[in-house]
Amino acid sequence: MSAIQSYTPQQAKAFALDILKAIHVPDAEAEIIAESLLQADLRGVKSHGLIRLPAYIRRIEAKVMNPVKNIQVIQDSGSTALIDANNTFGPLAGHAAMTKAIEKAKEFGAGMVAVRNSNHFGVSAYYTMMAADQDMIGIVMTNAAPALAPFGAKTALMGTNPVSVTIPADEEPALVLDMSSTLVARGKIRYAATTHQDIPLGWALDPEGKPTADPEAALKGTLEPIGGPKGSGLALMIEILCSLLTGTGFLGEVRETTDLNGPMKTGHLFCAFEIARFTDPKAFKKEIDRCVRLIKSLPSISGGPIYLPGEIEYLNVLKNQKDGLAYDGEVVASLNQLAASLGVKALPVKEA
Amino acid sequence: MSAIQSYTPQQAKAFALDILKAIHVPDAEAEIIAESLLQADLRGVKSHGLIRLPAYIRRIEAKVMNPVKNIQVIQDSGSTALIDANNTFGPLAGHAAMTKAIEKAKEFGAGMVAVRNSNHFGVSAYYTMMAADQDMIGIVMTNAAPALAPFGAKTALMGTNPVSVTIPADEEPALVLDMSSTLVARGKIRYAATTHQDIPLGWALDPEGKPTADPEAALKGTLEPIGGPKGSGLALMIEILCSLLTGTGFLGEVRETTDLNGPMKTGHLFCAFEIARFTDPKAFKKEIDRCVRLIKSLPSISGGPIYLPGEIEYLNVLKNQKDGLAYDGEVVASLNQLAASLGVKALPVKEA
Repeated sequence: MSAIQSYTPQQAKAFALDILKAIHVPDAEAEIIAESLLQADLRGVKSHGLIRLPAYIRRIEAKVMNPVKNIQVIQDSGSTALIDANNTFGPLAGHAAMTKAIEKAKEFGAGMVAVRNSNHFGVSAYYTMMAADQDMIGIVMTNAAPALAPFGAKTALMGTNPVSVTIPADEEPALVLDMSSTLVARGKIRYAATTHQDIPLGWALDPEGKPTADPEAALKGTLEPIGGPKGSGLALMIEILCSLLTGTGFLGEVRETTDLNGPMKTGHLFCAFEIARFTDPKAFKKEIDRCVRLIKSLPSISGGPIYLPGEIEYLNVLKNQKDGLAYDGEVVASLNQLAASLGVKALPVKEA
Repeated sequence: MSAIQSYTPQQAKAFALDILKAIHVPDAEAEIIAESLLQADLRGVKSHGLIRLPAYIRRIEAKVMNPVKNIQVIQDSGSTALIDANNTFGPLAGHAAMTKAIEKAKEFGAGMVAVRNSNHFGVSAYYTMMAADQDMIGIVMTNAAPALAPFGAKTALMGTNPVSVTIPADEEPALVLDMSSTLVARGKIRYAATTHQDIPLGWALDPEGKPTADPEAALKGTLEPIGGPKGSGLALMIEILCSLLTGTGFLGEVRETTDLNGPMKTGHLFCAFEIARFTDPKAFKKEIDRCVRLIKSLPSISGGPIYLPGEIEYLNVLKNQKDGLAYDGEVVASLNQLAASLGVKALPVKEA
């Protein structure tokens, strides 16, 4: 059962749609959620793809997440808006918010839409790429469950708090930055714990704030920020913009996706601005092409290719569209268990 | 002559004003430039204070910087604008741009003003704090002379490219993040070179892209970004927003302040948005106070105090206002040499 399974993007998406429809998510909304999960898998960000479906559904079954999209616009003035996600699927809130930021950018040049009471919204890059498709620069940030400490403190208070920026190109793929404020993802430490391996010193601190090679101690402690006080400070600013500015809650209140004791209380901030307000978009995108080509022609340290932000993910999309999406057997088993519980047709499984 | 000299903030500012007036900078403009330099010194960011005056004046004498403020608004629509600094003092361009971003934020909720053909504008935090004084969140970024390589490349193409975010508090000092995309400032490596000391591995790469402890090799190579591809990607995005979006020039074209072969061609991006469009500013600022106090009460790794972003600089201001500003004897000598060349009254010097 642990053999790698391969599916076409269409198969994977159809499965996600079936699951969502089984819990009565309307077609248009299921489409947005399934598409955001599929894009994560296509880009090779497997931690944010279909693997998340069981956790999403578990939250709904535990009545700590709302399957109905009842997003409310709380404030809407000029180039800004505040949206209350009312605890529905993060990708629905994210898609609605970035759509609104883009509309505002068309009208006012820039749009800035904050979201409160949301959930895990998948990969940030999904939303910044929506803006880039409209000849805009997209910037998105979100908070997450506590993982990082204020610099010098022992206690995790901020999430890994990613920020994404996407800048469109003409013939080259868009430049897509999607970075957390931590040196490594918590998933890598969980993997080391599961496989009983040490982690390199510098990835994480134990609960006493000491560097640790023990993944179990690391999971009880805090992740190391990028650049010490810089990454920690960046995470704090993102945390405040997503929590206190949106009125979602106080620092440290965001729950893990797997914590069923209450709503996640995630907040996000979406920004889009029109390139045309500053320069000719076509000429700008050609300059980005030139910039990409210049960087790829620079002498490389390894002798191998130099990759631009988002390029590896772009190459993953091309490969996965051609060869199909590969999922670990365990992931497929978990998805098929979910399917069985909802009376949904399972993904076909080939034995190793 | 190398004894530390101490001056009141008034003395330091008056000296800067005298220098600027001697080269015929009008009063109102000299005031902005002097104030921005003074604030850097007060905050303890000595690399960006009065020490910069000789370099600024040298650029004007070499006719690669324009002492006359002839800032032009190239585009102005909705919440966005593009300003051409026409190669005048960076702080004049920065002050004008943030003032415009704040005006736009008052009208539209958010303001985003890009600047092209500018010069070194001092500390980014100076401008984000202008926004915070108006119950806004300020975000500022700038490019700089090449110091960082695209990840995996040997060649420096992007500047240290700082980003600053300021969030106002009520009774507590504002949270002021002002971080470069590099692990350490180039100045620290220059200092090690001057004093013939090794630098820690991990600060910089030599021209072949190998980690080096030799500060001379580091100065010929590139600085290490925070978080590897993350800091390098962040610097690239900032570089593009400040150069290609503003139409200032291509990547890698920004000159050092000390390079007199042509204009610096710096670009900046200024953003301000009104807290009131999202939540009550007074209540928000009280929540920031609560957040500051919570963080300061967390268990500390060192046992000493936990500092918030910008807090050390804030404490420096209090100390320097009380005790006076301390300048190295060499800095005073360089300032007094400049003063003599312009027929300006020297700063008083006490022998050690």
